[in-house]
Amino acid sequence: MKRRDFFLKAGAATAGAAAAATTLAAPAIAQGNITWRMVTTWPQNFPGLGVGAQRLADRITAASGGRLTVQVYAAGEMVPGLQALDAVIDGSAEMSHGAAYYWQNKSMGLSFYTGVPFGMTNRELAAWVRHMGGQQLWDEIYDGFGVQGFLSGDTGTQAGGWFRNELTGVADIQGLRFRTPGLGGQVWEKLGASVTNLAAGDIFPALQNGTLDAAEFVGPYNDLALGFYQIAKNYYFPSFIEPGLATELVVDKAKYQALPQDLQDLVRFVCQAEYDEVASDFAANDPRALQTLVNDHGVTVRQFPDEIMEAGAVAAKEILTDIRDNGDDLTKRVAESYVEAFNIVRQKTDGTDSLYLRAREQYFTLE
Amino acid sequence: MKRRDFFLKAGAATAGAAAAATTLAAPAIAQGNITWRMVTTWPQNFPGLGVGAQRLADRITAASGGRLTVQVYAAGEMVPGLQALDAVIDGSAEMSHGAAYYWQNKSMGLSFYTGVPFGMTNRELAAWVRHMGGQQLWDEIYDGFGVQGFLSGDTGTQAGGWFRNELTGVADIQGLRFRTPGLGGQVWEKLGASVTNLAAGDIFPALQNGTLDAAEFVGPYNDLALGFYQIAKNYYFPSFIEPGLATELVVDKAKYQALPQDLQDLVRFVCQAEYDEVASDFAANDPRALQTLVNDHGVTVRQFPDEIMEAGAVAAKEILTDIRDNGDDLTKRVAESYVEAFNIVRQKTDGTDSLYLRAREQYFTLE
Repeated sequence: MKRRDFFLKAGAATAGAAAAATTLAAPAIAQGNITWRMVTTWPQNFPGLGVGAQRLADRITAASGGRLTVQVYAAGEMVPGLQALDAVIDGSAEMSHGAAYYWQNKSMGLSFYTGVPFGMTNRELAAWVRHMGGQQLWDEIYDGFGVQGFLSGDTGTQAGGWFRNELTGVADIQGLRFRTPGLGGQVWEKLGASVTNLAAGDIFPALQNGTLDAAEFVGPYNDLALGFYQIAKNYYFPSFIEPGLATELVVDKAKYQALPQDLQDLVRFVCQAEYDEVASDFAANDPRALQTLVNDHGVTVRQFPDEIMEAGAVAAKEILTDIRDNGDDLTKRVAESYVEAFNIVRQKTDGTDSLYLRAREQYFTLE
Repeated sequence: MKRRDFFLKAGAATAGAAAAATTLAAPAIAQGNITWRMVTTWPQNFPGLGVGAQRLADRITAASGGRLTVQVYAAGEMVPGLQALDAVIDGSAEMSHGAAYYWQNKSMGLSFYTGVPFGMTNRELAAWVRHMGGQQLWDEIYDGFGVQGFLSGDTGTQAGGWFRNELTGVADIQGLRFRTPGLGGQVWEKLGASVTNLAAGDIFPALQNGTLDAAEFVGPYNDLALGFYQIAKNYYFPSFIEPGLATELVVDKAKYQALPQDLQDLVRFVCQAEYDEVASDFAANDPRALQTLVNDHGVTVRQFPDEIMEAGAVAAKEILTDIRDNGDDLTKRVAESYVEAFNIVRQKTDGTDSLYLRAREQYFTLE
């Protein structure tokens, strides 16, 4: 028996004696371990993200020695995926795992905590959230709903999408029936696409029956499983609308703050560890999946023409400027903080990281 | 009083009664909390890295509710910085915080866990270590010394160095007395520099009295404090010899494995959280420090000429090839694993991340 297991049992068995022997108020020992329900927005075993939600839960359970045991419910098991946050707000779950931009209808400011078109990479986002005031503003938004959010993963820069035909410029996008959600969808609309959003499982049939011309989902690691390559062979890079998709763990704030301080810290640190774990998982497995797509499924990897990326940047700027100018007060403050941090962090990205990567790409190979 | 504090006290106070009431073997409860000593290779309060070591210790202490309390000793407090690992091996400390490449003399393979010239970025390194077999080989190296290593931070891509004069090409490097350590130093030697290694505190005086012509240390966040800008005004980017400097936490493996499983997990997760915390700290604070250097101290930011970076790539390839060909068996296997992973992960970096960053740099601004 592990020391820790014994410790818990000994403590529980003798709680009455301990209380009698001291003058302390009755503690919560008799309650034993706490079990929390985590609802997620992901299908079970969804690569990278659903698997990450389960691993996050398992890590909290393990590192707390079972004192805080987390049970995961995949999308649809307890509530539909897009009701995950509401389940925490109404108290039917203690945690949700998803992406903040799903809840744009509650506050447009939440978009910035997942990723915005032409915005921050995952490393830049972490810099803003952890070291440049981003978390405090996020807390301010979620305080309005009695919850607390933590970054809990990131896909890294995504793929741009699956297209039946080669794209030569913006003209090829006019009227294109394209699946892509959120602010990114608004960018593609401005470029002339006819944008729809469909749930993961509905994309392949829509491509197959011709309702969709093209679709964007996540990246190779996730897209491989969904079989889009069977219909649309041109796989475009990079996604300029999703330079990263950060996931969040949301907790019921009152219940969270009632936890012993060490468990509060533990939840926070495990979320941060997962931010790294998920991002490095995608860094390892996106390129592996892309190799499979190219070698086994005849996929052609292409880059978006400059004309499309330039037009995308113009559209992204219009959309973000509109949010800054016309959002509610808190959204405006989030946008200001984001833009200020963005203009600082990108100096290192552009002036150091990109210069290095360019030199490495140009001059260095090791076979 | 926090529930957890009470729990510990109640458990300790009634351990005798619990043991008497059950048939279990005597547990370790009477030992109370464990205190471990962490020796580091960093000066106290050293930005990013020394501060990170202290924060890592504090986080373990906090998230374990004090069950595992970690006391930090800065370089020189218990042992000199470069004896930190030996202190763990000989049992005078339970943990060390530093960089694996400091211990190249024990195994050349350790270099790969800090960063090598023209090698992996910090995200790529995490992908290799966590998802592509890197950790297992690292464990194999450190098993020979009875210790275990975990990634615990990363500076991100560093600055290239401080130079008195502008560099126009490789000719300007001939005979240049340059401070830069490790494999990076070997690269610069091949380029014609006269390379020396000096401890942090010795660099400024050597620049001042003319013993050094130029020096490379970390990046703006660390370099600002050391005052190099007073002597050498040309600050070159990027470092092609240190695309990242990963730090490690090393633990005494036998003592670590004797910890309860939940504490073992906790140490591992806190290290992984710190990998993100430190990297995002540098992402936020390197560019801020660089602004100060430029605006307040008249520093000129420059890019290395292509000729120097290309020659650096050739030199780096020679050095890494030599390690692969002539290292001991385990080092060869580490190098093979690293190169195989490198050639996979860079496909996403080059084919997605860099394409995105290039488009963003070219087309997107938000003031």
